[in-house]
Amino acid sequence: MIGAGQLARMTQQAAIPLGIELRVLAASDRDPAVLAGAICRVGSHESLDDLRAVAEGADAVTFDHEHVPNRWVQALAEQHAVRPGPRSLALAQDKHHARRTLAGLGIPVPPFELVRAGDVAALERFAADHGWPVVVKAPSGGYDGRGVALVGSPAEAAVLDLGVQHWLLEERVRIERELAVLVARRPSGETVVYPVVETLQQDGICHELVMPARVPPEVARQATAIAQRILDDTDAAGIVATELFLDVGGELLVNELATRPHNSGHATIEAAATSQFENHLRGVLDWPLGDVSMRAPAAAMVNVLGGADGSDPATRLPEVLADPSVHVHLYGKQARPGRKLGHVTALAEDHERALAAARRAAAGLAGAGLALTGGTG
Amino acid sequence: MIGAGQLARMTQQAAIPLGIELRVLAASDRDPAVLAGAICRVGSHESLDDLRAVAEGADAVTFDHEHVPNRWVQALAEQHAVRPGPRSLALAQDKHHARRTLAGLGIPVPPFELVRAGDVAALERFAADHGWPVVVKAPSGGYDGRGVALVGSPAEAAVLDLGVQHWLLEERVRIERELAVLVARRPSGETVVYPVVETLQQDGICHELVMPARVPPEVARQATAIAQRILDDTDAAGIVATELFLDVGGELLVNELATRPHNSGHATIEAAATSQFENHLRGVLDWPLGDVSMRAPAAAMVNVLGGADGSDPATRLPEVLADPSVHVHLYGKQARPGRKLGHVTALAEDHERALAAARRAAAGLAGAGLALTGGTG
Repeated sequence: MIGAGQLARMTQQAAIPLGIELRVLAASDRDPAVLAGAICRVGSHESLDDLRAVAEGADAVTFDHEHVPNRWVQALAEQHAVRPGPRSLALAQDKHHARRTLAGLGIPVPPFELVRAGDVAALERFAADHGWPVVVKAPSGGYDGRGVALVGSPAEAAVLDLGVQHWLLEERVRIERELAVLVARRPSGETVVYPVVETLQQDGICHELVMPARVPPEVARQATAIAQRILDDTDAAGIVATELFLDVGGELLVNELATRPHNSGHATIEAAATSQFENHLRGVLDWPLGDVSMRAPAAAMVNVLGGADGSDPATRLPEVLADPSVHVHLYGKQARPGRKLGHVTALAEDHERALAAARRAAAGLAGAGLALTGGTG
Repeated sequence: MIGAGQLARMTQQAAIPLGIELRVLAASDRDPAVLAGAICRVGSHESLDDLRAVAEGADAVTFDHEHVPNRWVQALAEQHAVRPGPRSLALAQDKHHARRTLAGLGIPVPPFELVRAGDVAALERFAADHGWPVVVKAPSGGYDGRGVALVGSPAEAAVLDLGVQHWLLEERVRIERELAVLVARRPSGETVVYPVVETLQQDGICHELVMPARVPPEVARQATAIAQRILDDTDAAGIVATELFLDVGGELLVNELATRPHNSGHATIEAAATSQFENHLRGVLDWPLGDVSMRAPAAAMVNVLGGADGSDPATRLPEVLADPSVHVHLYGKQARPGRKLGHVTALAEDHERALAAARRAAAGLAGAGLALTGGTG
């Protein structure tokens, strides 16, 4: 696995019962997956030599993030089973490419246009057609709300600097709910689809989710169908997460794609018969996919962010565990204000109880100086 | 944790989400827990120096087995939080001591007597009072059916060699069902008790179990009460497993105790809200104990034993995973005929379906040359 963050850490946990040895390319030997016992090679995901070294002898190569240059993914794929493959990975790496590809498949996406960074006139023309404010995105490299801006006027556009060559302009969707659909796929095309998840965003970060989503069955069916259709004729393998907007008019629009385990799927560890991490491994290794049905009527997940005082949530773990309904996951990261340090999942008879329990526990772990802004992955 | 076998391996899996760093004293750096990423110190559990070295700086010291000499446990306990402590560990280490202690508490146990090994006359006198055959046990060191013999005549007794100084003689119980009760305990005395498990033995090895046990509620209540009573006034912490016989007359008798996670609790990983491994860690660290309620109406677990051809079950994993109802746990051990190499758990609406699925998967993993005898831990 390229990368050794919390997704690799939870993949390591899923690898143990299956007898899989997980080897990671880590930036540091204190990365979350390394502390969890994954076999570690320290190196850079931008170095083809390092990528080749960690891939040597592996049954399959997969990813904890989408930041490996696509040309290196293509080079690796010549000698290794790289899953997902370079084509589907490009859908997660290049937002403009994803928009064009999906629009080409007839899948609904927000109106968009790629322009040179700083081309305020082009942005004004886009706004004339689609209204202010305009969503401006860096076409690649952004996550967790970074690389995205909401621009309300030409003056704001004139001072915007996303540090990139091009801007991807998008119409601002009037959002009723945000959904995510997790599909696990084998290279052969076989898929299983988890119950649709509802994500509750703050500052562009997926802080909370409830599962299943509180939407009519027909909306869940449509969202599922869209997520599956994206995977037709791709080289995807393992988990693909499709983020969707349900707009106020009741229309579903695809927001973004991730071709790896995803924050919106963390509740599957306890809430589904097979976690997204186990199904990622199964898909990547071309093994039969596991049961994705839910084990409780409702689940909620809340991220644990570092408090303003920089203290370690682990010091507050015992008091939080006093609530028997919560399941705590700490990532072994050094605490920093606003940093994603873990998550809490709660299962309950209904969404409200699950969400209340998970929020209480996450707040307890974050401590008094809860910081909700300035999040860094 | 002293020892690095499959129990330590599954404890490592449970340690990851809680952010716990598990360090193990392993016989080899290829032991199951080490392959799962536990921090490894290679050494002997019979060397006080090695025990002290692995315990250095740990928040608590616990065990994957009961083979550490009790005098070393006492020595360790002078400087470390050793959980379970030497008194309760003695109940798992010395079967005669356990019998006397339980009998002294008024807890029903089979009639027993300690005699010199080879004292056939004493065994004949015991048989005159309690009938043939007589169960003869090594008072310590045995597990998984080793160190236990069923002696049907003075002639059989005359040739019996268990390799020990004393024989623990016991009346043979006419068994209706075998049960196990798993209790998690904090040092303060707080406990949680898992639903009673029914174990299905072959050749003295716990090969299969169903959960909850198929016994009347009153029997389950009695078994639970007995298991809890054993823990009154002990220095136990973490999981304590009490194995019981339900005899044909409907009476419950305590068979053996284990003061660690236990084979009879493996189904708790999927079948209970909190696994025995997580609750062992919580108890040992004096943290609040987790919810032990079941997540499905019924669960079954079947051990995966090495087939006669010595082939690795991992090679058959993909075909077995085609049944979405099963959860496979492989221990990373080298395959040998009859060796316990893993287990399978299935959840279902009823016991029969769960057991059928788990048996099918375990047989599939073991391969054609299924070996059921000569088990070695």
